[in-house]
Amino acid sequence: MKNYQTIRFHEGVLSLIDQRKIPGEESYFQCRTVDDVVEAIQTMVVRGAPAIGATAAYGMLIGAMELSTEANNVDDVRVHLFQVKKKLDASRPTAVNLMWATEQMIKASEGYDDNSKSAFFKVLKEQADAIYQKDIESCNAMADYGNTLIPQEATLLTHCNTGPLATVDIGTALGVLVRAHQSGKKIHVYADETRPRLQGAKLTAWELMKESVPTTLIADSVAATLIRDGKIDAIFVGADRIAANGDTANKIGTFMLSALAHLYKVPFYIVAPLSTVDFKTLTGEGIEIEEREAEELTHMNGVQVAPEGVNVYNPAFDVTPHEYITAIVTDKGIVKPPFKEGLSNLEV
Amino acid sequence: MKNYQTIRFHEGVLSLIDQRKIPGEESYFQCRTVDDVVEAIQTMVVRGAPAIGATAAYGMLIGAMELSTEANNVDDVRVHLFQVKKKLDASRPTAVNLMWATEQMIKASEGYDDNSKSAFFKVLKEQADAIYQKDIESCNAMADYGNTLIPQEATLLTHCNTGPLATVDIGTALGVLVRAHQSGKKIHVYADETRPRLQGAKLTAWELMKESVPTTLIADSVAATLIRDGKIDAIFVGADRIAANGDTANKIGTFMLSALAHLYKVPFYIVAPLSTVDFKTLTGEGIEIEEREAEELTHMNGVQVAPEGVNVYNPAFDVTPHEYITAIVTDKGIVKPPFKEGLSNLEV
Repeated sequence: MKNYQTIRFHEGVLSLIDQRKIPGEESYFQCRTVDDVVEAIQTMVVRGAPAIGATAAYGMLIGAMELSTEANNVDDVRVHLFQVKKKLDASRPTAVNLMWATEQMIKASEGYDDNSKSAFFKVLKEQADAIYQKDIESCNAMADYGNTLIPQEATLLTHCNTGPLATVDIGTALGVLVRAHQSGKKIHVYADETRPRLQGAKLTAWELMKESVPTTLIADSVAATLIRDGKIDAIFVGADRIAANGDTANKIGTFMLSALAHLYKVPFYIVAPLSTVDFKTLTGEGIEIEEREAEELTHMNGVQVAPEGVNVYNPAFDVTPHEYITAIVTDKGIVKPPFKEGLSNLEV
Repeated sequence: MKNYQTIRFHEGVLSLIDQRKIPGEESYFQCRTVDDVVEAIQTMVVRGAPAIGATAAYGMLIGAMELSTEANNVDDVRVHLFQVKKKLDASRPTAVNLMWATEQMIKASEGYDDNSKSAFFKVLKEQADAIYQKDIESCNAMADYGNTLIPQEATLLTHCNTGPLATVDIGTALGVLVRAHQSGKKIHVYADETRPRLQGAKLTAWELMKESVPTTLIADSVAATLIRDGKIDAIFVGADRIAANGDTANKIGTFMLSALAHLYKVPFYIVAPLSTVDFKTLTGEGIEIEEREAEELTHMNGVQVAPEGVNVYNPAFDVTPHEYITAIVTDKGIVKPPFKEGLSNLEV
C-alpha cells in the first residue's frame, strides 16, 4: 500500500505532495493561505482534475478562515467568499472541476443561516470533506468495476497519469490496475512515458512502484510493437472529456493507442467518473483541443533540443472515436456500446 | 541550399560537423589522427550509416599517413593498415557500413604494387573519395526516384534522421523531401521528434530549416491524429535493414506510423540504398532488435525524470511488415510489391 497522500487537510493546513519534484524527491507543499493554494495550482504542485477540485474546496475553507480574522460576522465572510472563488477559479481557468468545487462551497455557505463563525466553518469543512470523500468513493467504485474486466494474469498498458496523484486517493484508470494487483491478480503494467510532459515517466511509474505493481516504462512509440505482438491484454486510460456518443478526449497519444488496439483487436477501456461525460457535446467533433506552448518540445530542463524558431504543433489532447472503445468504466457502472444509450441511462 | 558539410577531407584533415552540438551550435570537429576519428565515431560527433562509412574511409587514409612517418616503405604501411581497420571497426561494432568501408580501403591498398608512398596515398585517397562520391550519387538517385512519388502540393511526414547529417550529402528519405522542395513543389513536412534520442527534433528539423523547407515539429504520438484526419499525403522514412521480403527494420516508432498509414490508407515509403537489403535475411523475424540503455528514458540532460530503479524496455528499432509498405525507393529504382521479386531483380 502506498505511503503518501496527495492531499491532506489537518488543523487548518492543506498539505499537498509536491508533484513538481516527483520522482526525484518526495516533499509536501503547505498551504496556509488562499495565495498558497493559488500558487500550488498555478505552479503544478497539484494537477489532475479531481485533485485540483478537492484542493480548491479546502482553499475556499482556508479563504473563509482568513477573511474571518477581520470580519465582524458570518455574513461579512460570506459576501467576500465570492472573491476567494474568483481568485481560485482564475488559478487554472480551463479546469471545470475546480469551478464546480468552488461553486459547491459557495452553495454550502449560502445554505447556512446561524451567525456563529465556528458553526459556519464546520459547514464549509463538511462540504470540502464531502467533495474529498466523494472522489475517494467514486475512484473506488471505478476500481472495482474495472477490475472485473481484468483476467487473473494480464499484461496491461496505460498512458499519461491517472493515479493517486491526479485524484484524492486511488486514481481512475490506474486505480483499476492497482485494484487488480491488490486483489491478487498477477499483472504487469507497461507505462507510456507520455510526451511531451512525461507524466507517465515522472508520475505513473512512480505511483505503480509505490504500490509494488510490476512496471515497465516505454517510449510512447514502443506500444505499437507490443500491441501487434500480442503482448498487451488490455489498455486502460483516463478521460479529459467524454461526448454523449462516447467519443473521448484524453491526453495526446491516447488516440494512437486506440487505433492500434482496434487494428490488432486488443480491448481498449476508458475509465472516468460519469461527471466527465459532457452530455451537451454530442460527438468528439464538438470538443476543442487545447494547444500548448512550443517549449514543451523545443526545450528539456532548460536545454534547447530543437532549432531556434522551429514551428511546433503541440496539441494537449486527441479524440478517440467511440468505435475504438471497448467499454467505458464509470463510477456508476460499466458502459458498453452503444454508448449514447448506455451513458444516458446511467445519468438518470 | 544548405551552407554546411557533414564530412569534408581537405589537406590531410577530416572536418566533421559536430552533431552532438546541433541544433544549439554549428561547429566542426577536426580529425588529424586515427584516434581523433575513433573518438568522433564513438562519441557520436558523426552518426548515420553512410556518414560513418565515409568517415571511416578517410580514417584509413589518415591512419596510413600516420604510419608512414615511421615506416620505411609502402609494404610496412600496408601491413599495419590492418591495425587501423581493427581500431576503426571497434569504434561502432554494430555498424555494418563502417566495416564495409574499411574493407574497401584494405582492398584498394592490396591492389597497389608500386613502392612510392605518395602514389600509395593517392590510391587510398581515390578509394575514400569514391566511397564519398558513391554515397552522394546514391542519395541523389533516391531523391530523384522518390520525388516522382510526390504530388505538386503535399504534406509529408518523416521520422528520425535521414538527411544530410546521416549521409555525405542530401540524405535518404529526407533527401526525397528536399529534392521535392528544390524542384518547386509546394511541400510541408511534419517531423516527429523521435523519442528517445530526439533525432527528429535535434537534427531533422534543423536540416529542413537549413533547406528552407516549411517544417513543423511534433511529438511522435501526434502523427496518429494527423494521419486519421487526412492531413498527411505520404510518409517517407529510412531503413536500418531490409529483409529479402521487404520487411524493414528502422528507428523505433516507424512501425507505429506504418500501421496507422495502413489503417487510414496513406502511402508509406521506405527510402534506402539497395545495399541496405540483406538478402540472406528472408523476413523481418530474422532481424535482431538492439536494446539500448534505460538512461535514454530515465534521464534528460542529466536530470532524472523517472523513478530510481524503474524497469525500462528501450528497443532501438522496430520492424515494419512488408504488407504496410507502399514502395521501397532505392538508388537503383522504385520497388513495388511483391518486394521479394522486385528487390532481387534489382540486385542482379
